Amino acid sequence: MEASRPLDALNSAKGKRVLVELKNNKQYVGVLKSFDIHINVVLEEAEERVNGEMTRKLGVLFLRGDTITIISPA
Amino acid sequence: MEASRPLDALNSAKGKRVLVELKNNKQYVGVLKSFDIHINVVLEEAEERVNGEMTRKLGVLFLRGDTITIISPA
Amino acid sequence: MEASRPLDALNSAKGKRVLVELKNNKQYVGVLKSFDIHINVVLEEAEERVNGEMTRKLGVLFLRGDTITIISPA
Amino acid sequence: MEASRPLDALNSAKGKRVLVELKNNKQYVGVLKSFDIHINVVLEEAEERVNGEMTRKLGVLFLRGDTITIISPA
Amino acid sequence: MEASRPLDALNSAKGKRVLVELKNNKQYVGVLKSFDIHINVVLEEAEERVNGEMTRKLGVLFLRGDTITIISPA
Amino acid sequence: MEASRPLDALNSAKGKRVLVELKNNKQYVGVLKSFDIHINVVLEEAEERVNGEMTRKLGVLFLRGDTITIISPA
Amino acid sequence: MEASRPLDALNSAKGKRVLVELKNNKQYVGVLKSFDIHINVVLEEAEERVNGEMTRKLGVLFLRGDTITIISPA
Repeated sequence: MEASRPLDALNSAKGKRVLVELKNNKQYVGVLKSFDIHINVVLEEAEERVNGEMTRKLGVLFLRGDTITIISPA
Repeated sequence: MEASRPLDALNSAKGKRVLVELKNNKQYVGVLKSFDIHINVVLEEAEERVNGEMTRKLGVLFLRGDTITIISPA
Repeated sequence: MEASRPLDALNSAKGKRVLVELKNNKQYVGVLKSFDIHINVVLEEAEERVNGEMTRKLGVLFLRGDTITIISPA
Repeated sequence: MEASRPLDALNSAKGKRVLVELKNNKQYVGVLKSFDIHINVVLEEAEERVNGEMTRKLGVLFLRGDTITIISPA
Repeated sequence: MEASRPLDALNSAKGKRVLVELKNNKQYVGVLKSFDIHINVVLEEAEERVNGEMTRKLGVLFLRGDTITIISPA
Repeated sequence: MEASRPLDALNSAKGKRVLVELKNNKQYVGVLKSFDIHINVVLEEAEERVNGEMTRKLGVLFLRGDTITIISPA
Repeated sequence: MEASRPLDALNSAKGKRVLVELKNNKQYVGVLKSFDIHINVVLEEAEERVNGEMTRKLGVLFLRGDTITIISPA
């Protein structure tokens, strides 16, 4: 991810593995497939992690932007 | 679900069983009938699950987008 | 309720008994009289339920959309 | 209150005693003087109730819509 | 305060002492100097009260509308 | 700060020391450098206070409006 | 950071190390790469800190504006 605007950083992360954290402290790791201006995000090959441990395999995953706190390369 | 934009992923999930989780941690599983840009969602043959156990059969179910955290194939 | 868009599902539920749940976990059952795009809802012959037990008869009831999580046939 | 749209129901409640409940679980009973599309509400002869007991007489009362969960005839 | 619309009620309270309560349950009493459509409010000669006891004298006070639950004559 | 509209009050506080409180109860004291219509605020020579005790010197400080409850002269 | 408008202050902090705090009390320190009007922020060489201790190295980090409380030079 590199950026002159924040969404540019998300754009260069497309197709790469990212970590997404939610306000409820759950973490999801997967390949960033798409996002929009609300920061709604779709991951592929997504896994849920709680306290760093994989708790569920979810495959394709839609995350509502409103619930996201951070996104970072995984 | 596949996606070039996040809502495309929801669109390709129409007619398929999905898992919807809410900010209050409740889970709903059902067939994705429709959604809109606010991520308001309608499921059919919906069941509520708490800690993975089915707690209620709800049939048709309208979920307000504002309360949704994630949507994934069930 | 059937739907090509989520509000269509609410529209076909008009005049029928529905269950409305709020973020504060209270449940209201009544006849769906009207709703708008904010999902503000008016029920008639409404009752409040807490843990499945009827706690109050409220008659006509206005529910602010922002506080609603799910709506389902009762 | 009768309604083809939710705000019509509030409109027919003008001049009548209503119960307004907030997200913080406080209840206010008074005569509905006015409301707007944000569901900002003004009551007259308003009383605050906690657990059904009158705790304060407030007279004229402005309630910010964002904090309201339900409105019903008192 | 009298009102045909809610903001009219706030308008007639200008220059008078009002009580403003916030979502965090703090109370502020002061002379209503101004407000806007977001219900941002400025009080003069403002005091903070917690559980009915004066805890701080604040003088001029800007309150962000988003945090306000009720406003009433003091 | 004097005001015919709430933002006028903030405008006359520019260049003066103000107290800003957040929804998380933290307090920041500093010289009001700028604000915008979202009540995003920049303070200079800012200090953080918890329970009235200075906990951190922060220098220049950007505060996101959405998190602010009150602003008052310090 | 200096400012006639709040975003000007963020603009002059570009390329410098800043501290970003979130509503969930987590702290992130990194080089401010970009931000937008929603205060979505991208940091580079970002580290997470909890109670002042570095807990994770994150590299590039997208922070959703809605979750941010303060931004200050680190």
